Amino acid sequence: MVDLIEAKRDGQALTTEQIGWFVRGVTNGTIPDYQIAALLMAIYFQGMDRRETVDLTLAMARSGDELDLHDVAGFVVDKHSSGGVGDKTTLVVQPLVAACGLPVGKMSGRGLGSSGGTLDKMESIRGWTPDLTLPHFKQQLAEIGLVLAGQTNDLAPADGKLYALRDVTGTVPSRPLIAASIMSKKLAGGADGIVLDVKTGSGAFVETVEAAVELADIMVEIGEDAGRKMTALISDMNQPLGHAVGNALEVAEAIATLRGEGPADFWAHCLEVAAQMLHLWRPDDPLDEIRERVVSARSGGQALEKFRQMVAAQGGDVAQVDRPATLPQAGHVEEVQAGRGGYIAAMDTGELGWAAVHLGAGREEKGQPIDHAVGFVMPVKIGDQITPGDLLATIHANDPEELAQARAEILDALTWSDDPVEPLPHFYDVVGEEENR
Amino acid sequence: MVDLIEAKRDGQALTTEQIGWFVRGVTNGTIPDYQIAALLMAIYFQGMDRRETVDLTLAMARSGDELDLHDVAGFVVDKHSSGGVGDKTTLVVQPLVAACGLPVGKMSGRGLGSSGGTLDKMESIRGWTPDLTLPHFKQQLAEIGLVLAGQTNDLAPADGKLYALRDVTGTVPSRPLIAASIMSKKLAGGADGIVLDVKTGSGAFVETVEAAVELADIMVEIGEDAGRKMTALISDMNQPLGHAVGNALEVAEAIATLRGEGPADFWAHCLEVAAQMLHLWRPDDPLDEIRERVVSARSGGQALEKFRQMVAAQGGDVAQVDRPATLPQAGHVEEVQAGRGGYIAAMDTGELGWAAVHLGAGREEKGQPIDHAVGFVMPVKIGDQITPGDLLATIHANDPEELAQARAEILDALTWSDDPVEPLPHFYDVVGEEENR
Repeated sequence: MVDLIEAKRDGQALTTEQIGWFVRGVTNGTIPDYQIAALLMAIYFQGMDRRETVDLTLAMARSGDELDLHDVAGFVVDKHSSGGVGDKTTLVVQPLVAACGLPVGKMSGRGLGSSGGTLDKMESIRGWTPDLTLPHFKQQLAEIGLVLAGQTNDLAPADGKLYALRDVTGTVPSRPLIAASIMSKKLAGGADGIVLDVKTGSGAFVETVEAAVELADIMVEIGEDAGRKMTALISDMNQPLGHAVGNALEVAEAIATLRGEGPADFWAHCLEVAAQMLHLWRPDDPLDEIRERVVSARSGGQALEKFRQMVAAQGGDVAQVDRPATLPQAGHVEEVQAGRGGYIAAMDTGELGWAAVHLGAGREEKGQPIDHAVGFVMPVKIGDQITPGDLLATIHANDPEELAQARAEILDALTWSDDPVEPLPHFYDVVGEEENR
Repeated sequence: MVDLIEAKRDGQALTTEQIGWFVRGVTNGTIPDYQIAALLMAIYFQGMDRRETVDLTLAMARSGDELDLHDVAGFVVDKHSSGGVGDKTTLVVQPLVAACGLPVGKMSGRGLGSSGGTLDKMESIRGWTPDLTLPHFKQQLAEIGLVLAGQTNDLAPADGKLYALRDVTGTVPSRPLIAASIMSKKLAGGADGIVLDVKTGSGAFVETVEAAVELADIMVEIGEDAGRKMTALISDMNQPLGHAVGNALEVAEAIATLRGEGPADFWAHCLEVAAQMLHLWRPDDPLDEIRERVVSARSGGQALEKFRQMVAAQGGDVAQVDRPATLPQAGHVEEVQAGRGGYIAAMDTGELGWAAVHLGAGREEKGQPIDHAVGFVMPVKIGDQITPGDLLATIHANDPEELAQARAEILDALTWSDDPVEPLPHFYDVVGEEENR
């Protein structure tokens, strides 16, 4: 192991055999944590080339169980979002795709820091559970074509161990390690086609479009080398996605979007992600035709119905889906009005995410409880022209003392301009299968 | 701790408080090894500035007991060699300095890899022990002015822990960590004046004069910031020091040198180190006068007598000092003659060190037993003109099958030239108190 550490420290590429040996040692606990930590830091500084990153990902993907859903799905599709503020995309995209005839069984995670987690949002619905056995998962996927479950530690266990160490050794922000972590779980999950939603901007861990494209390139290469169909969307996270930030508030916004309402940016985002997922399944169908099918699945009510079926199948109270006002409500609701006029030039979206965490909507450390009711709804976007007194946000809090802090954090996150500001695009780039269209 | 790791990872300087907190956590075991390992690797890549390195060294020096020998020595002097092949300097320098009236109580270590250790060499003498209690150490220092003891784990325990982790995480070759490791032990040992012998060349871990000067600069700065008198000699290690490599062979060469015989390069080296140690004690005396005193301490027999007294006081058989032929002798002795003529242009001194290890004179891993009798004597130096058939080395082995390998390794380590080659200097530079003389 010292040889591996020194080789990487000195900028050499590790061999396929060395990487396989390392991942086996991580998985079965024969390599001490301090040597793993030293290698991770050496990788942070020296990087890994494409072949090394693919080798690492494949070794991690094979470190535990590998899921095979082909007995219940002819084509297995998955998506991954790199995380952001107000990102409730899965809640809308999955039902859209399922309503278009492609079954989606997805495993999601919980939120940490300024990024929310899909499971936390869904648990705003009374009784809903992500804890499904594999037979239950497959049965639901076969019957209604839509499942949303928690991640299991049996898939890519090496990733769980490595991530836990990276989290406490300052080695999270390493591109090859990020790519291997994400892709190892997706590959072990058995997806035939994977759409990656790589977010960039002030609310994402990748701050520039260039860095997001590089990360997307690596992940698309890994997936293609492993024989999967891959598309990566480079999407904007310089402002929250949609208006709602906070668990029940986001579920309500997702339901509204499935009903044909909801914020335009969020709908545009969901439409594109769903269409790209379907396009991996039906590559010969023109993307515009697929987009029309997605639009119809929403306007015809089939997508909302899929969502209702999934909620019911996983123990959730469908009455809350039908009447989102019955979702958890915060005790104190306060509006934030603009004290000045002008154009919104920028938002520190990470800070907006933290404002929601401080209200109780997220967690600073793993395992902390969260308050599903709290958060804020922010109907303004970069480029909007604001007049003094306009509504900037509505804060939902359970502790009235937190209202003032949230107000200050939201206002602090805004940058103003006296001159008109261009709105931001939703997407910057597409990498993979679709990149030449 | 994650904050510290990330700060260093991102190239920031750690504060005095952060470094103190880290060293306390290392010493009392509250910081997990994997976080220590990650920080060490970050330091490997990002380095430490002078203030950080001094802070780290002082915190390590204060992490355990701090020795105070002023009840038995008015001025406490110490020396440190950065390690090399054939470096038996301590065995000669200590008696010289003690014979000139300055008591020397020194703690030494064991050999590892291609570098030998002073304790291993001394243990060639039957009965001699480095295991002394502190009262015994002080009593011997007061009575005969010369002690050579083993290192205790009670001095700078943080260094022991950090070194053990560095050794298995590829973070040994980091200049600030090397400097802090060496100097923390010296400072905890309570020396008022310290002479550093920083070796450079093919048999040293620092390969260039520039790198050796930089390492010496840091260590001299640390010592001066801690109020100690410091001199660092930058000395050559592109060929073994003296002729003998191997424990009993080196003891015999040291005794010969104390008698007024022995290789010229080794004597020149010992004379200078001893003079520099004495000059820290008597800075107003001209260095040339001090050198004359050292020469007299040898020619008058006082230095050899000090060595005899030290051996006797520590349980050693003085008869072996008086008749070095009674030191352990190898069963097989074979000469290596030159198969060609020419000038010796270079020696891979690290490989020569390993040749001795392979004969059994050193250890590849800590705790391995060693064979005191084996090694080789190599009377040639870079620049020597050699005629075919000239003696290049005499190999001393206990396993006759190892003779051929040692012969091949010794011959492989030599580079020849048909044109005359300049001999190498013994010293390249002096850093510290003496640098302007």
